[in-house]
Amino acid sequence: MKSRPGLDQLGLSAGKKARLHRILYRHGLGNGTAIFLPYDQGLEHGPRDFFANAPASDPKYIIKLALEGGFNGIAIQIGLAEKFYWDYAGEVPLVLKLNGKTDIPSTIDPLSPVNASVEDAVRLGADAVGYTLYVGSPAQEHDFGQYLRVREDARRLGMPLIVWSYPRGTAIDGKGGKDSFYAVDYAARTASELGADVVKVNFPHPEKQAGVPEEYVGEFSSQMAIDAVVRSANRTLLLVSGGERAGDAAMLEKARESMEAGATGLIFGRNVWQREHEESLRFASQLIEILAKYPAP
Amino acid sequence: MKSRPGLDQLGLSAGKKARLHRILYRHGLGNGTAIFLPYDQGLEHGPRDFFANAPASDPKYIIKLALEGGFNGIAIQIGLAEKFYWDYAGEVPLVLKLNGKTDIPSTIDPLSPVNASVEDAVRLGADAVGYTLYVGSPAQEHDFGQYLRVREDARRLGMPLIVWSYPRGTAIDGKGGKDSFYAVDYAARTASELGADVVKVNFPHPEKQAGVPEEYVGEFSSQMAIDAVVRSANRTLLLVSGGERAGDAAMLEKARESMEAGATGLIFGRNVWQREHEESLRFASQLIEILAKYPAP
Amino acid sequence: MKSRPGLDQLGLSAGKKARLHRILYRHGLGNGTAIFLPYDQGLEHGPRDFFANAPASDPKYIIKLALEGGFNGIAIQIGLAEKFYWDYAGEVPLVLKLNGKTDIPSTIDPLSPVNASVEDAVRLGADAVGYTLYVGSPAQEHDFGQYLRVREDARRLGMPLIVWSYPRGTAIDGKGGKDSFYAVDYAARTASELGADVVKVNFPHPEKQAGVPEEYVGEFSSQMAIDAVVRSANRTLLLVSGGERAGDAAMLEKARESMEAGATGLIFGRNVWQREHEESLRFASQLIEILAKYPAP
Amino acid sequence: MKSRPGLDQLGLSAGKKARLHRILYRHGLGNGTAIFLPYDQGLEHGPRDFFANAPASDPKYIIKLALEGGFNGIAIQIGLAEKFYWDYAGEVPLVLKLNGKTDIPSTIDPLSPVNASVEDAVRLGADAVGYTLYVGSPAQEHDFGQYLRVREDARRLGMPLIVWSYPRGTAIDGKGGKDSFYAVDYAARTASELGADVVKVNFPHPEKQAGVPEEYVGEFSSQMAIDAVVRSANRTLLLVSGGERAGDAAMLEKARESMEAGATGLIFGRNVWQREHEESLRFASQLIEILAKYPAP
Amino acid sequence: MKSRPGLDQLGLSAGKKARLHRILYRHGLGNGTAIFLPYDQGLEHGPRDFFANAPASDPKYIIKLALEGGFNGIAIQIGLAEKFYWDYAGEVPLVLKLNGKTDIPSTIDPLSPVNASVEDAVRLGADAVGYTLYVGSPAQEHDFGQYLRVREDARRLGMPLIVWSYPRGTAIDGKGGKDSFYAVDYAARTASELGADVVKVNFPHPEKQAGVPEEYVGEFSSQMAIDAVVRSANRTLLLVSGGERAGDAAMLEKARESMEAGATGLIFGRNVWQREHEESLRFASQLIEILAKYPAP
Repeated sequence: MKSRPGLDQLGLSAGKKARLHRILYRHGLGNGTAIFLPYDQGLEHGPRDFFANAPASDPKYIIKLALEGGFNGIAIQIGLAEKFYWDYAGEVPLVLKLNGKTDIPSTIDPLSPVNASVEDAVRLGADAVGYTLYVGSPAQEHDFGQYLRVREDARRLGMPLIVWSYPRGTAIDGKGGKDSFYAVDYAARTASELGADVVKVNFPHPEKQAGVPEEYVGEFSSQMAIDAVVRSANRTLLLVSGGERAGDAAMLEKARESMEAGATGLIFGRNVWQREHEESLRFASQLIEILAKYPAP
Repeated sequence: MKSRPGLDQLGLSAGKKARLHRILYRHGLGNGTAIFLPYDQGLEHGPRDFFANAPASDPKYIIKLALEGGFNGIAIQIGLAEKFYWDYAGEVPLVLKLNGKTDIPSTIDPLSPVNASVEDAVRLGADAVGYTLYVGSPAQEHDFGQYLRVREDARRLGMPLIVWSYPRGTAIDGKGGKDSFYAVDYAARTASELGADVVKVNFPHPEKQAGVPEEYVGEFSSQMAIDAVVRSANRTLLLVSGGERAGDAAMLEKARESMEAGATGLIFGRNVWQREHEESLRFASQLIEILAKYPAP
Repeated sequence: MKSRPGLDQLGLSAGKKARLHRILYRHGLGNGTAIFLPYDQGLEHGPRDFFANAPASDPKYIIKLALEGGFNGIAIQIGLAEKFYWDYAGEVPLVLKLNGKTDIPSTIDPLSPVNASVEDAVRLGADAVGYTLYVGSPAQEHDFGQYLRVREDARRLGMPLIVWSYPRGTAIDGKGGKDSFYAVDYAARTASELGADVVKVNFPHPEKQAGVPEEYVGEFSSQMAIDAVVRSANRTLLLVSGGERAGDAAMLEKARESMEAGATGLIFGRNVWQREHEESLRFASQLIEILAKYPAP
Repeated sequence: MKSRPGLDQLGLSAGKKARLHRILYRHGLGNGTAIFLPYDQGLEHGPRDFFANAPASDPKYIIKLALEGGFNGIAIQIGLAEKFYWDYAGEVPLVLKLNGKTDIPSTIDPLSPVNASVEDAVRLGADAVGYTLYVGSPAQEHDFGQYLRVREDARRLGMPLIVWSYPRGTAIDGKGGKDSFYAVDYAARTASELGADVVKVNFPHPEKQAGVPEEYVGEFSSQMAIDAVVRSANRTLLLVSGGERAGDAAMLEKARESMEAGATGLIFGRNVWQREHEESLRFASQLIEILAKYPAP
Repeated sequence: MKSRPGLDQLGLSAGKKARLHRILYRHGLGNGTAIFLPYDQGLEHGPRDFFANAPASDPKYIIKLALEGGFNGIAIQIGLAEKFYWDYAGEVPLVLKLNGKTDIPSTIDPLSPVNASVEDAVRLGADAVGYTLYVGSPAQEHDFGQYLRVREDARRLGMPLIVWSYPRGTAIDGKGGKDSFYAVDYAARTASELGADVVKVNFPHPEKQAGVPEEYVGEFSSQMAIDAVVRSANRTLLLVSGGERAGDAAMLEKARESMEAGATGLIFGRNVWQREHEESLRFASQLIEILAKYPAP
């Protein structure tokens, strides 16, 4: 395993360190790794994502699943946090997602508008906030502006900031697409440069080379690619996202390669809860088995 | 009847709970259901909506109608609230509508600009505020921004927030239209994710399937559709809107199905006041008869 | 005469009522009616409007004319108020116009930017502020936003708010034009819904029916039209504007019909000062004769 | 000579009057007239304007020239004021220019962004601030907005406000152009309406009549035109600008006509410093000779 | 050598002077010159810039290199400053770069959004802040606006402001391009006019004359061009940028000519760290040898 940055190295304030410590060492395996359950798809995609497993439409079901499955945190929007987190407050860490959008209008050059504040997160007892940054979107000027305010509030209030660092926009579509090695590598670095404490990226696809800068043209294994991405994130803790539902074996292999590369953990949503309850728990336990092999030193 | 969320489950502050309690248990039937009389059409459509029943042009007539008809509240804009609510202040709850627009310029990709504040609502003795969110409009970035400020003010001042959650824009026009099951279901969920206390939606039309995501293609009865919409709203109280004037029998059936699905109530304007006074009262009493069958447990 | 709203009915604060009382009962006829002299054309159209009567270029001449003619107020922009109102401060009420624009760039879809504050009005001893709202312009989102701030400041400082409610924009051009019955009726209602204390409208032209909603297609006399417009303004005091210079007889007839309909008064600029001094006074006195026939009860 | 407004008539606060008094009576001729040396071309046009007289590239050279030439003030941007005004602080009044732009991007419909504050001017010991208003530009909404903030700060801090009132934009290009009588006349009036204390205009060209409103079509001598422009500025002190370098005789004649019309003074930059040092002083002295003939009464 | 402005001449506050003194006289050669190591390419270009020398991907490696190489400062973004500067805090001055962008979306008419504040710089112990100004971009209105806020914060907190003054945009592309003599000369002057303490420019290319203003058409040696550029910056300290990696001999000659012209120093990034470690140090030492020949008097 590549070395992973320790909490002591990140230049964290007491508040940020206390909350990250709680997530990494007081929940889940408690070994310095983490697996998060994201549940913002009701806003991002609409209720259609719940048709595959009807109970998943109920936020209470999901929070309970996070608890039963041994997750280190649940990432939800303000409305659900206010109405449902109370039931299990403190039992599983809350990551309050601060921005989001529907996928109804064109998402060609997207921006994810802020709908909650870091103060909301503090009030609700959250241990981190999440922000979606669309790296490469022409709306980046607006995006960086609202991100800046979130980052400053998070610093002021000692709240860890997790950046969903997502390459998007017509430009990136012409440079290998949103999950090319080039795009994911740049996204990891951007989050690091802009002061994220934790960055969430998709798993890179080094074979997507159409239009990428020449440095990314060549033979790269997926392990080499994820190694480089973790390196680009440097002292920003890195989480690998599950993305759309896919085959379990491939998912588990991605997870293993990510941890091998020095990632701190995983953030898997639809791959977990778009199946029947016992199946969700079984798959989560397989992911956690992998995390168990990569404890903090 | 499907179960309906109780006021204890919604994570409400004392102020929000006190005001919602007043609306739901101290006015109208006082059984935990509600019927509202909306009267923002003078701004939204202009005086032409009053030609069908000339006295309806007078705000005083409407507020009196709400009182006589046993409504749980009247929803009006700031100008009318300032000039007319005083006459009947406290006799019928006021829902101050905080945004609105004329329908003169193109409404292809709409936004409803804010014209009053939650402070205005407090000052006028309102028991709730209303905000129109155009779900799916490309202007959603601007919309979410002004909504956020309203939501935060409403939280700070303990004022219940009712979201008029309306799918709109060219994108939704190409996905079944603004009252497709898909659109209404997404709108209900969006309001819930963004922290509405109450959401107002149109009755869904499951037969409108042109261009909707595949999950919404199939045989759905209108009862199945409204059941799903109420589920998507989860702990957000749901009101079904009457919309444009239509046949009474169809309207009453919609109302019944909505309450059966677990809706908290109805919000009917033109269907009520675009007819002669006694007829308005008669129709309102038929709606209230339905509500009487669905008391809170 | 149709009944006219009294100052007691408008839900006014002490400050607003005191200032409106001063305008309506301590100046002009002192009988509850009012005639205003607007003089913002130097900004709106440029000095060309003064070529018809050269002395009218001098703001001092105009303020003196308002005083001599027995007007209830003069409406001017900040620059002239600061430099010229001092000479006659208190002798004739000041309406500080808070926004305005030149007519040099295209005014197809206009917005009138704010150039002074309600605080400026207080500081200068004004008894009201004026705001031009372009009803139906696609810029209405921006317009409503700056209007909201003006309305809130006016409320906070007890300053009456007069809205120049002007239908404008390509959409209204296709619906009978800016002075169709439909457009003027909607404009009056919009100002009322948005919380104006007083609204200034153009006289409606019911014969302009090309493209108007069906409710406005039919035989309406000009008296019927202005009656409806005053009704749409409900408890918002209504002033009828003179507009471009036209024949005296027609003007006087419009004025009479307006007062008959329940208008509170008139606001005539170019029709007054675009003629030689004695002629201006003579025409003003004819308008005032009409007002004398419609005293408050 | 036409009468010129005295400082007592302008409705000035003590601070504004004190500073204007200093400029008009304690510097230059001290006779109530003024000549300013503007030096913002380094930003507006770039260093190319200094190729005609290389020493003019050095701000220190220019400030010294203003002092030697007996100018009433020097108008420069914040950067030069901070780095160079110190050397001669108090010896010649400083007009801090608060906005400006490069001429690199298209200036079709321009706006001049603010780059310094009235507070900066106070801190640096300035006796006035300058603001460029592009009258007629479609960007006027934005322009009026930032101008409003400058005007309010200037009022609060007792700082005289000089408006560079420049007709610009495609619309004015089609109405006789930026220095037509129509355009300059409207610009002078606009500054007055918006509350400028002093307005700087170009000399009007009454022969440019293509597309101007009919009132401006006719036989007007240049004296008639500048007389009208000064009248349109009413109680706003008027400065005539030199503009691009042109023949001395024509310039001096313009200056004379301007003073005859009631202008308060001149603001000549390139015509002064785009020549060798002694020549600059000689030409300035000719301008000052003209001013000497028009003392305040 | 042309004379170089001394710290006493710049109108600096105590705080700005103290920090610039620290950079110029307590680090590097300590002779009043400076060489900076910029490292914002991870954001501006992405990790691809590190493929030429893999260790350069690690911010710790770069900061150490700056220390070993005797640099006067390191310029990095907020994220790296927070996570890595701590290790060597105080050992090498920090220039916190306050804005930046990715190069993924079109950069035709660019703006560099702010992502950190002057307060961040103070908190982290920085001795200067950096701001990229895209001179000539149509976005200059927005750019000047955010620059203004940075300049004011820097003044308030006594923090030196280094402007990366970069000509950009379609207009400049048609006037000789971004490194023409015309463009660089204008950029240096713009930074000076707008109040930069230090300006960073590219080395001018006087042979690029297609479309430049006539004053820049002619025979200019590169020494003449850089002389003029330094003159245009007047009392703003000037740094010459290395830009893309190029041949060492040409680079060293540029450096020599720059210092000869009166530049205060150099800012070389990719030319230094896009090579193996010992080579980086060797090249840096050659640059420093040049600086040694131009001590402050």
